[in-house]
Amino acid sequence: MAEMPALRHITSINDLTNDEIERVFALSETYLSELGDPVIPYRIARGTTTATGRILASLFYEPSTRTRLSFESAMSRLGGQIITSADPATSSVAKGETLADTVRVVSNYADAIVLRHPRDGAARLAAEYASVPIINGGDGAHEHPTQTLCDLFTLQHENKQLRDLNVAISGDLRGSRTIHSFVYALARFGANIMLMPAKGMELPAHVDQRLREEFGCRPVPKSKYRKENSAVDALYVTPDKPHQLSLNVGIEPAVDVQIRKGIDVVYVTRFQKERWAEASTDYPKIDAKFLKQSKYASTSVLHPLPRVGELDVALDSDSRAVYFRQAAYGVPVRMALIDLLIGREAGLTRYAAGFAPPSYPLYDQRRDAGIRCPNPNCITNEPLEQAYVRNRFWALPSPTPHGQRLRCIYCEADAEAAVAGHARRLDFEPVAQDHAAARGPLPQHLVFFHSEADALAAGYHPRAPRRRAAAAR
Amino acid sequence: MAEMPALRHITSINDLTNDEIERVFALSETYLSELGDPVIPYRIARGTTTATGRILASLFYEPSTRTRLSFESAMSRLGGQIITSADPATSSVAKGETLADTVRVVSNYADAIVLRHPRDGAARLAAEYASVPIINGGDGAHEHPTQTLCDLFTLQHENKQLRDLNVAISGDLRGSRTIHSFVYALARFGANIMLMPAKGMELPAHVDQRLREEFGCRPVPKSKYRKENSAVDALYVTPDKPHQLSLNVGIEPAVDVQIRKGIDVVYVTRFQKERWAEASTDYPKIDAKFLKQSKYASTSVLHPLPRVGELDVALDSDSRAVYFRQAAYGVPVRMALIDLLIGREAGLTRYAAGFAPPSYPLYDQRRDAGIRCPNPNCITNEPLEQAYVRNRFWALPSPTPHGQRLRCIYCEADAEAAVAGHARRLDFEPVAQDHAAARGPLPQHLVFFHSEADALAAGYHPRAPRRRAAAAR
Amino acid sequence: MAEMPALRHITSINDLTNDEIERVFALSETYLSELGDPVIPYRIARGTTTATGRILASLFYEPSTRTRLSFESAMSRLGGQIITSADPATSSVAKGETLADTVRVVSNYADAIVLRHPRDGAARLAAEYASVPIINGGDGAHEHPTQTLCDLFTLQHENKQLRDLNVAISGDLRGSRTIHSFVYALARFGANIMLMPAKGMELPAHVDQRLREEFGCRPVPKSKYRKENSAVDALYVTPDKPHQLSLNVGIEPAVDVQIRKGIDVVYVTRFQKERWAEASTDYPKIDAKFLKQSKYASTSVLHPLPRVGELDVALDSDSRAVYFRQAAYGVPVRMALIDLLIGREAGLTRYAAGFAPPSYPLYDQRRDAGIRCPNPNCITNEPLEQAYVRNRFWALPSPTPHGQRLRCIYCEADAEAAVAGHARRLDFEPVAQDHAAARGPLPQHLVFFHSEADALAAGYHPRAPRRRAAAAR
Repeated sequence: MAEMPALRHITSINDLTNDEIERVFALSETYLSELGDPVIPYRIARGTTTATGRILASLFYEPSTRTRLSFESAMSRLGGQIITSADPATSSVAKGETLADTVRVVSNYADAIVLRHPRDGAARLAAEYASVPIINGGDGAHEHPTQTLCDLFTLQHENKQLRDLNVAISGDLRGSRTIHSFVYALARFGANIMLMPAKGMELPAHVDQRLREEFGCRPVPKSKYRKENSAVDALYVTPDKPHQLSLNVGIEPAVDVQIRKGIDVVYVTRFQKERWAEASTDYPKIDAKFLKQSKYASTSVLHPLPRVGELDVALDSDSRAVYFRQAAYGVPVRMALIDLLIGREAGLTRYAAGFAPPSYPLYDQRRDAGIRCPNPNCITNEPLEQAYVRNRFWALPSPTPHGQRLRCIYCEADAEAAVAGHARRLDFEPVAQDHAAARGPLPQHLVFFHSEADALAAGYHPRAPRRRAAAAR
Repeated sequence: MAEMPALRHITSINDLTNDEIERVFALSETYLSELGDPVIPYRIARGTTTATGRILASLFYEPSTRTRLSFESAMSRLGGQIITSADPATSSVAKGETLADTVRVVSNYADAIVLRHPRDGAARLAAEYASVPIINGGDGAHEHPTQTLCDLFTLQHENKQLRDLNVAISGDLRGSRTIHSFVYALARFGANIMLMPAKGMELPAHVDQRLREEFGCRPVPKSKYRKENSAVDALYVTPDKPHQLSLNVGIEPAVDVQIRKGIDVVYVTRFQKERWAEASTDYPKIDAKFLKQSKYASTSVLHPLPRVGELDVALDSDSRAVYFRQAAYGVPVRMALIDLLIGREAGLTRYAAGFAPPSYPLYDQRRDAGIRCPNPNCITNEPLEQAYVRNRFWALPSPTPHGQRLRCIYCEADAEAAVAGHARRLDFEPVAQDHAAARGPLPQHLVFFHSEADALAAGYHPRAPRRRAAAAR
Repeated sequence: MAEMPALRHITSINDLTNDEIERVFALSETYLSELGDPVIPYRIARGTTTATGRILASLFYEPSTRTRLSFESAMSRLGGQIITSADPATSSVAKGETLADTVRVVSNYADAIVLRHPRDGAARLAAEYASVPIINGGDGAHEHPTQTLCDLFTLQHENKQLRDLNVAISGDLRGSRTIHSFVYALARFGANIMLMPAKGMELPAHVDQRLREEFGCRPVPKSKYRKENSAVDALYVTPDKPHQLSLNVGIEPAVDVQIRKGIDVVYVTRFQKERWAEASTDYPKIDAKFLKQSKYASTSVLHPLPRVGELDVALDSDSRAVYFRQAAYGVPVRMALIDLLIGREAGLTRYAAGFAPPSYPLYDQRRDAGIRCPNPNCITNEPLEQAYVRNRFWALPSPTPHGQRLRCIYCEADAEAAVAGHARRLDFEPVAQDHAAARGPLPQHLVFFHSEADALAAGYHPRAPRRRAAAAR
């Protein structure tokens, strides 16, 4: 990541600090005027000139209406201009160009690039090659950070605060990139997260793991909430509540309080049919019947849209339906983000922090051999990108004594390496726990393999015992 | 339609009064400078700023070059900005989003929306959900009002006046939305309409009916014009000529005079292959040979373009060919319309009249049962929209003693209800003529059915005789 | 071509004089600031207003990212606006509209049109019907003049001068329009051209012929360079070097000097798969191994991009890799071109010369009979355009005593007419050499045929001997 020191990219909601998110929201408010009209309750600023003379490029490799048009509307409202490639079939992709080449070239044409791509981690890869800021407009099933900014802004705008909110999330939690960005943000702002996945569409393991390990979320045992919340499959509370942090055994009463308080938000998401091979049956539907329990009495219902049937249109006139306002907030929020990134007076200096990569050691694998990201939809597994892309991982402490946990820096899926090879000697041995614990640079010539079989297939041979002993010294 | 009181939509040419159309034309003239150059006889204003800070969204669900680009050019010439979704395959439609949802969301991104859609009546449906003006850029085979504005402007600009013009229309009069808007406008401005349809492509019955019933057109018997105009299938004169209005028997001499005067305009339209299952044979072709009769000596030949063969390219250099100027006028006319709708100084207040729905009673049918629009291409019959769309009709006086005529408020096709049910009692009886005659609100619980069989299939039963008697009191 | 006297089109690199090209470059420099930063060594002017109030239309009938977006970026950087039709499937082409009609209509919407089309010669045809400047954004395998402007600008910017440069060109020289524009320009600016085609992908015969006949290139015998340049298939030196012009026998030593000097530029191009029926095998690949010979020590490697495999990504960090800067220069160069064509202060008057067609006699064939362009991909052979397009050729001096050489004015491919007919008498005879030699207007009623068989098939009969004698008098 050394190649992009001065540039600010938004590839994940975690590329922004909490302070920065709050600055985006404060600026969003200035672009949004309340009218006090129940039908059209807001008006978006127009005729501003903060981005006059600037160009935003939309690079969309997947269908979109609202994300692309709301970015383009935002840029126009700021006085800026737009260039658009909305259809892969009419672009250089049709000629077989790599993402890296496209991004390097388009960097010359615009002051920032909004990228949507069907592959997980594509935005991170693009950011390595761009000479202007990359804004992730959705990359596969990975993240959709600006949607999360709109969602958070909606919650803050409608509920006044985010801390201690009970947020239930329903639907396809595995395939929805929106949800992944959203749960990290909820954790960071102290909300309680209640998961109501469709069958077989639970949160990906690595997202759950990160919530617990990095964002301090504490899973609550099902016995504590099952009675009142049979639809909830998992519940996390956040450690920002001091009594929970200090008193390990004191968590349960607090959870009870939270649950009794009712559910503040129901966030609904559609079945992401483009990420699944088969159609869904038994997909949960949110309608008036579902919401008639008293705990939903003052719920805000959110949905990133488009919906296809999981959210009853009969709710549209219900006062709890917030999703159309949520869509409307997309413009002022994106105006604020663009303004802070490339607006006339803003730029990088307005940010307190730069891009903050994890502090784990970076394992930067050579291209000829070694472990691959296990996520088949990761951008590193896209055939077109094989000519140049390298597998790179954060080396995380492993829960097991044997094996090195590796997190793909692009899609953030976890791999497990059982074997460590030496690229010059072409020998290997089981992973030593040291790699994981060490926070310094990893040894040169280190090549991780998923298994002995993989190492052997790559032409590596087991390390001789005396070498092992020597290496251990 | 109560939900859009303050908003001005242009879904039909009949959404504009004659006065308003003339205001559009007067403003169009200011955007069009005559150069007196035979090759480039006009110049379009550029560098204006009346729409600076405004955004026009193009939502095109069907292919288009000229309508979309001419709107976008017009908006640019006014200093405004554009956001475009030109391809359904790269938009949220690909994810199964309804038109209502898309329009509600895009309303947040723009100050007006130009919509093109393959379904008849789509613009009217969109208007019910939009919070910004919808401009119909062509909806199925229904209407194309801005094309008609360009056509009328061309006639006025080239012929100085519209009243008493003899306008012959050739080609696919059934599938061409352009023609439907055009004939209403001709009638309203007092032109005589001569129809020369391709075989089997006559004007739809409900358009013919409206011309006669609402727009005061008087069909002329074929015997009166067949000799001199064998290609003409139907001819209407308009009642704006006082001697025709007052003297019923006096019509024939006047018609003769009109026909002897020659044909002022030949309006040609292509075979709308996208609206027909089979190819056309014997489609009429307008060429020099066709135009060699003396009555075409000073004709203006118009065509909305694109053409595919029905208008000979050899005519392009003929002085009677007006179609390329007609295309050019599209920009100043659309500039004027946009300016009046969302320009900086304009807005709704510039309009003398708001959207003027017919004064027939509105029959707003519940979603669970009842008559459907008989037009298979109506937006109300689109499977994707079934989740929310309701059948709504104007209740018109019927020509027959038994049966209620209903006009779909979206596509304006006519349905005939033979049976009236009671939604609470679930019984039905034959339609009473009272419904049609009454101009007040329709009885609550009224549900119309096309036939007894439909009512029975919906679980309704025949009304007992004594109830009938009671109901009649 | 009489119908476009006042308009300036850029359909070929040869539509610009050398002086004009240098003016474009001088203006490009003002739009490009050097930063002295090794990573981002330049910055492109933004916020200029020279094209404010102007509209550029992108009409793209073939996929493109970089050409379209770089034009649109350039127009935006100049303060202008853009209207785009990027996908033939969503445009009037889907309805069967001709290029001539589309161009005539879109001319009303914009101040200039950038056209990309899959057919050779499409830009020239479009220029005949446009009332605004046509800029060729690539027409089939014919030309891509603005890419060549970027390439030349890169060479001048990186190498300080163009004269006497040794430029090697590798890859698909037949299918690449970029190469065709480029070799003409190299010849005009005095570079030596070394061709390294993929097998079977040599320069088209008519391009080679024009280089030698019109641009004064002198082919060097293979024996002179084969030893040191086994990959080179053909080498041209230019006659701008006085000693070569004056001393016919003195050419060889000079060539030797040039070759010993090393190769200044390697221009790589991808296999144009869209122009070939079959995949390529054995396509040359430029990589570090290829460039390790000393003659490449200070080479600049260029590529118009996109690349698919013929240019090793491992070169990207090589200091000889210039292709990403080359892509970046696309914006300032296109800014300059647009500015000179339609910028606020510029316009045609800024040009020293107008469109300069060749001085050969124009043979303007009637539509009913006669020779056709032999290039199957020529726009004149597109079925959709048959309704109006005419075959038109420049009548060139022929190398053979019998036969008339004809150059298609659209795609510039050469045809050979063996037979000359008389359109009124419907007779024919072998071509007389006179036609070729004469520089005046060609005889009326002259109709060329490829062969006697073609003339007979068209209903012509051999001319009687005494008529021949009379005609010869």
